[in-house]
Amino acid sequence: MVRFFVESGAVAGKALTLTGENAQHARVLRLREGEEALVCDGRGREWLCRVADASCWDLEVLEERASETEARVAVSVYMAFPKADKLEHVIQKATELGACEIVAFPSARCVSRPDEKGLGKKLDRWQKIAASAAQQSGRGRIPQVLTLPSFAAALERAAQADKALMFYEHEEALTLKAALSEGSYGTVSLLTGPEGGLEEKEVDQARAAGLQVCTLGKRILRCETAPLCALSAVMYDAGEF
Amino acid sequence: MVRFFVESGAVAGKALTLTGENAQHARVLRLREGEEALVCDGRGREWLCRVADASCWDLEVLEERASETEARVAVSVYMAFPKADKLEHVIQKATELGACEIVAFPSARCVSRPDEKGLGKKLDRWQKIAASAAQQSGRGRIPQVLTLPSFAAALERAAQADKALMFYEHEEALTLKAALSEGSYGTVSLLTGPEGGLEEKEVDQARAAGLQVCTLGKRILRCETAPLCALSAVMYDAGEF
Repeated sequence: MVRFFVESGAVAGKALTLTGENAQHARVLRLREGEEALVCDGRGREWLCRVADASCWDLEVLEERASETEARVAVSVYMAFPKADKLEHVIQKATELGACEIVAFPSARCVSRPDEKGLGKKLDRWQKIAASAAQQSGRGRIPQVLTLPSFAAALERAAQADKALMFYEHEEALTLKAALSEGSYGTVSLLTGPEGGLEEKEVDQARAAGLQVCTLGKRILRCETAPLCALSAVMYDAGEF
Repeated sequence: MVRFFVESGAVAGKALTLTGENAQHARVLRLREGEEALVCDGRGREWLCRVADASCWDLEVLEERASETEARVAVSVYMAFPKADKLEHVIQKATELGACEIVAFPSARCVSRPDEKGLGKKLDRWQKIAASAAQQSGRGRIPQVLTLPSFAAALERAAQADKALMFYEHEEALTLKAALSEGSYGTVSLLTGPEGGLEEKEVDQARAAGLQVCTLGKRILRCETAPLCALSAVMYDAGEF
């Protein structure tokens, strides 16, 4: 069923009207009177609606409910700024795969670092990519995309999860499976490095901050593949599929 | 360590010479005399070598061994022909993630189907993408990329694995985890549809051919995301990381 994200508070009472991009999208889809659509606030509430008037996109609310497509586990993807459009790729895919937020941060070997000035525009663009992927994949929440000013800030924030994990290509002993197997978890942080990898010093810092350092196997994954591989495995482990 | 793939049979005795693209690559990397490099036949054998003469890329063989980076489970990725460059994306990522082969085939809702004439060139290109990704990710084998002429042929071939699984967005009951939990497995087929999804009729055909039909969770994954998510989860389940 087609899904529209609206501002929180846009649904009041038993009716609402699609406007702007949503109205345009409804037109493109040739939605007709009597057809059903889902309206979501992007924060986990949704309204099953029926098109009452397709000329002005008035919808009638049939039912309000909590979204049924969100993962039970809240996974935050922490990714060191990669080059070019790789962050956009990861935002789109991590949204489909059910991440609750995507956090980008600088690390020692980052080649690309957006400057303060251009960052606002970029964040807008990244948030739009997340919203679009959330809509297409049928999510009830739009993951937040945010950036942090330093590696230390990323560690501190990531460490607050029940399972705070960093992936490092030279770690061989601790598997992700072993890290996830001890005790239950409701929140997970997955931290991965940039193209050139993480420095040993950074791995030490992460351990000191309370993160567990894990392997993703014997093959070297690209910086845009590692977070999505880890996220898929965590969702699998948590019983999502 | 840098890794070169050579033709099977190129290593005879205690010495070999890098030629063509490998020599060019060695030059770009500024490999020096005395430095070590791995030479692989792309079929699971590798030779630890030392540069004996960097002017003509003569290497001295130090040790012959079986590759240590291959997965213990052989996973075949069966993907209905997607549009544009998505197949190339999946070939690259599935190679990193350890797939043993990538098999493309037509299905009812495929928008893109390479014609017989252009297929040879495309296969060459796809195989090169796999080789390059195998080299970068440090694999000992280059996965084979192949195409099949029909959906029925894909089902018949996929069904031969210990676990032959199809993913379908309208399946809710059988999780991948449940499908993998019964008995052990050494070979796995993962079959996914094109942009428009699989038809119900095709799902019935798959069941009749012996495939199990599974869900990848409550969110709708894009056709290029689904196989990589499933592959990551199988590698995780098989104890790879």
